[in-house]
Amino acid sequence: MSLLGFGDRLSSAVHSHGNPVCVGLDPRLAQLPASLRANGLDSFADQALAFERFCCEIIDIVCGMVPIVKPQSAFFEELGPHGLMALAKVCHYAASKGLLVIMDAKRNDIGTTAAAYANAYLGRSNASPFGCDALTVSPYLGTDSLEPFVSRCQSTGSGLFVLVKTSNLGSGFLQDCVADGITVSERVANYVQEQALATSSSQQSYGSIGAVVGATYPEQLAEMRRIMPNAWLLIPGYGAQGGSAKEVVLGMDHEGLGAIVNSSRGIIFAYENPKYAAATSWQHSIELATNDMIEALQAARLG
Amino acid sequence: MSLLGFGDRLSSAVHSHGNPVCVGLDPRLAQLPASLRANGLDSFADQALAFERFCCEIIDIVCGMVPIVKPQSAFFEELGPHGLMALAKVCHYAASKGLLVIMDAKRNDIGTTAAAYANAYLGRSNASPFGCDALTVSPYLGTDSLEPFVSRCQSTGSGLFVLVKTSNLGSGFLQDCVADGITVSERVANYVQEQALATSSSQQSYGSIGAVVGATYPEQLAEMRRIMPNAWLLIPGYGAQGGSAKEVVLGMDHEGLGAIVNSSRGIIFAYENPKYAAATSWQHSIELATNDMIEALQAARLG
Repeated sequence: MSLLGFGDRLSSAVHSHGNPVCVGLDPRLAQLPASLRANGLDSFADQALAFERFCCEIIDIVCGMVPIVKPQSAFFEELGPHGLMALAKVCHYAASKGLLVIMDAKRNDIGTTAAAYANAYLGRSNASPFGCDALTVSPYLGTDSLEPFVSRCQSTGSGLFVLVKTSNLGSGFLQDCVADGITVSERVANYVQEQALATSSSQQSYGSIGAVVGATYPEQLAEMRRIMPNAWLLIPGYGAQGGSAKEVVLGMDHEGLGAIVNSSRGIIFAYENPKYAAATSWQHSIELATNDMIEALQAARLG
Repeated sequence: MSLLGFGDRLSSAVHSHGNPVCVGLDPRLAQLPASLRANGLDSFADQALAFERFCCEIIDIVCGMVPIVKPQSAFFEELGPHGLMALAKVCHYAASKGLLVIMDAKRNDIGTTAAAYANAYLGRSNASPFGCDALTVSPYLGTDSLEPFVSRCQSTGSGLFVLVKTSNLGSGFLQDCVADGITVSERVANYVQEQALATSSSQQSYGSIGAVVGATYPEQLAEMRRIMPNAWLLIPGYGAQGGSAKEVVLGMDHEGLGAIVNSSRGIIFAYENPKYAAATSWQHSIELATNDMIEALQAARLG
């Protein structure tokens, strides 16, 4: 059997939807729409159920519009085992609706422990309880710690996004350290490019091993695009964290491929934004905000 | 109310048990004793139940012998939500038996997402579903990403072990990079020492923010001890990963405080070790292996 790699599946999904928008599923209790609070949120079980409903409704809205969603594991873990149950259901529901699913869990460990994380999250089969298409991972432990993840990607047609340059203010603490003439983030980027090339179906395509690169540092984004010509970039920080459409298109090629752009709060809590005061429901505001983001990216790319 | 910090609680636990042994709870299906396979391990639910029973039996054996246990989250996550349910039960059971509990999950993220992870794992109260005493975290995202964790430690009397120098062969990829005259791991160590000092009850005591430092690089362990005089060191890699008693004592002070030493496979799967062929049960082999490790550390410290 020839297994289609994650890189190619993502290219195809971005191409068919005509946009590279990733909707971040970052539910937060304090911001849930009123209708989802009606049954009370006293226990972790109630809270987890509300998260599940919220995310599944978001999935229903965006599944025809965008190629990919990215659940943030931390907010589900905060609710304990009930939260993780909701997270698994949300992942499976998104996949059933034709979306690609990136688990944002920033995992990292070594050897068989890393392999256990890879099995947990990567690969759409019953063998993986969360069954996602890709996972975010951290490189601090070294490239040998990433190998079990890469190997799992190859055997299951899934993908990785390795943290390279993050969007937070303090990201430079380690990532900008210069050793032997290159920064730590460039060192990681070089590794990602090797793996991306090794997992791509042609020299011109994007492989299954990608990188997280924030949009808050546009000049670094352009440089990262240059260092990793075969890697998908996952760009967080659109909207809420300060990245604009003009900046994130630096990550894309002339066909609009090569980068996916994530927005979480700006879309899922759009009902709180005065801009969408005319929306008929919180669901409607999500649809409007998603459309706005798709159009802003398109305009920036063509402009 | 005056909240006793994790650093002081750990000092007191190590002192009262007379040893710094941490038993790693890393259950693996393929190595479970036969009696735990009797009911079949076909579903994730069955597997999770077997993990829970295995770990709770280990806890029963070691709770009078050692101060602390360290569940490895990855092996439970591999079983999905059922695994996480088992993990939460194991954490609560260990705490109920008087053990301190370090969740080994190597989490990292930024801002409110990091805070969600901190809430999930840190603090013995109903507000934290896993309710552990400490958590391992990764520093790649920068010191601002660690602040929400540190803040949670202060409000709940819990602790952190920041990955500084890990025990794997490829750990040098980033950790040994030299920028501005110091390695990346030393840069992280300096941060840990600042936080350790800020959270310690006196200049002579160990604070609540500690570091993971592997025993496979003894000269680096001694150097790390020097850089972080107020930080608890969590030393993995005893036994299976190659660190010996003679090496790990480099992390301790003359009172035997300052470092805890983890062994996972060497203890929990001792029944597979020919050395313990005379044990009357797998439980007995765990008791023997734990005793051997306690004695080996004591001999190395006094020798």
